[in-house]
Amino acid sequence: MNFKNELKEYQEIIETELKKYIEKNESPEKILNQSVEYSLLAGGKRLRPILVIATYRIFKNDFEKCFPYAVAIEMIHNFSLIHDDLPAIDNDDIRHGKPTNHKKFNEYTAILAGDSMLNNAYLIISKDLISTTNNNERNQKIKAFNELTIAIDRVIAGEYVDTESEGKNISKEKLKYIHENKTGAFLRACVRIGAILADVTDNDLNKLTSYAEKIGLAFQIKDDILSEEGDEKVTGKPVGNDKNKKKCTYISEYGLSKSKEILENTIEEAVESLKDFGEKAEFLRELAFYIKNRNK
Amino acid sequence: MNFKNELKEYQEIIETELKKYIEKNESPEKILNQSVEYSLLAGGKRLRPILVIATYRIFKNDFEKCFPYAVAIEMIHNFSLIHDDLPAIDNDDIRHGKPTNHKKFNEYTAILAGDSMLNNAYLIISKDLISTTNNNERNQKIKAFNELTIAIDRVIAGEYVDTESEGKNISKEKLKYIHENKTGAFLRACVRIGAILADVTDNDLNKLTSYAEKIGLAFQIKDDILSEEGDEKVTGKPVGNDKNKKKCTYISEYGLSKSKEILENTIEEAVESLKDFGEKAEFLRELAFYIKNRNK
Repeated sequence: MNFKNELKEYQEIIETELKKYIEKNESPEKILNQSVEYSLLAGGKRLRPILVIATYRIFKNDFEKCFPYAVAIEMIHNFSLIHDDLPAIDNDDIRHGKPTNHKKFNEYTAILAGDSMLNNAYLIISKDLISTTNNNERNQKIKAFNELTIAIDRVIAGEYVDTESEGKNISKEKLKYIHENKTGAFLRACVRIGAILADVTDNDLNKLTSYAEKIGLAFQIKDDILSEEGDEKVTGKPVGNDKNKKKCTYISEYGLSKSKEILENTIEEAVESLKDFGEKAEFLRELAFYIKNRNK
Repeated sequence: MNFKNELKEYQEIIETELKKYIEKNESPEKILNQSVEYSLLAGGKRLRPILVIATYRIFKNDFEKCFPYAVAIEMIHNFSLIHDDLPAIDNDDIRHGKPTNHKKFNEYTAILAGDSMLNNAYLIISKDLISTTNNNERNQKIKAFNELTIAIDRVIAGEYVDTESEGKNISKEKLKYIHENKTGAFLRACVRIGAILADVTDNDLNKLTSYAEKIGLAFQIKDDILSEEGDEKVTGKPVGNDKNKKKCTYISEYGLSKSKEILENTIEEAVESLKDFGEKAEFLRELAFYIKNRNK
């Protein structure tokens, strides 16, 4: 199967699992659930849950075991998007080409829908832990749960420094800090969670962590490039938004041409980290090129 | 030991554990941590973690085992206070006699500090699960974790309906829904988590659940009474605040005198639910009277 088809197949798996979750959702508040559903099914690349599943599949076939983590992770990703878009934070009106949650509903609904999604992600994980009877499997799942909580702590810290830095001249070190925490830590955790659930050796975990850190960096550089020269109709985000808000980005620090060069080298290093995993890691390799070449 | 001293001792235990957590906190963002610390150590009755520990102690002595849950629960309680106080939700300026988090810091800090506290509560739980090697104990802790996530889902839903209802005439059913979810579900979970961690029988769990539901109801009625006729200097909250915002409360629904009668009966029922637990439940009995008689 070629990469595009495999990616589409993964995306469909995630959509199906998210819809199943929404159907079974027993949260008591209807409008709040609608707001959660609105953001959760608004599209998006589903990159994070795909990383979990694709990493797991390098080692094992029964990838359905990752689904609770895949869904939880996509929910947490959407929690962070909803809160980041809030007037007090990034004040964005458009996400995936649609009104942001607080624009579609209102601010208190967006705050509480975000809270609900973060909490419900852990609800899903707790349910899955209860139904896991195999002791070794349970150990891996608890480690994966811990990995996720630590990463999200960093995502929130990164978002904080990013918000605090808006309109300010910041150092390259601070830019690196923002990227490594806000975006990098989460992508890193997704790959590591897939690997931990597959019960890999420390050596393999280290190689995959290196891959994850490189694509995390590449992802952020590409985001900055798209914000500078992307097609608004394709990205679904206003072009020049970062520049208008004087946001500190790779472009503002290094310029467009140098940023593209850094992106190129970073992708090469990511692919290099996978060299010992052979054919089974082909999807992750292609995914690195996809991150470089994507137009949204 | 009399109740007041025992309560104080419990409160000191919680303060010590919260301070230990703050000292060990490895979250990467300093100001965000200061904002978390500000709210976490701003006082408060520490009722929720005390319920966990006091319930556990009816059955077992080694109550240190509850500490991670006690700290996590107090953090989640403070997360919900910080978000409830936000301009888009309750828009409150004063909490525990001090500026609310967004007044002391700013709105984006308050949103992200709240997010951080909710996530960090689960981080603490995940760490504790990793370090728990006894299988039966681990099972109970996973159940307690699940119990907590379900309760917080209801807390957020209750807060949503409460916010949505502000300034509107709402039915008694809706008032009941708000109380049972926003306040009741959390207090109920605290007692149940203490019991679950102590590995009690289903029969005992049911009796304690009944106690918890009654004191949850009593707590809300008393809150409404204090908002109507409390001393602002003691409660730390503006008196008449609910009335000014046309909030639906027990007082607006039943009047002050009838509300006090309902409170009295509810406390009697709570104490009745504890009748089979003898001397060991004395603190929980006294706590029910304390909820009725408190002036803040």
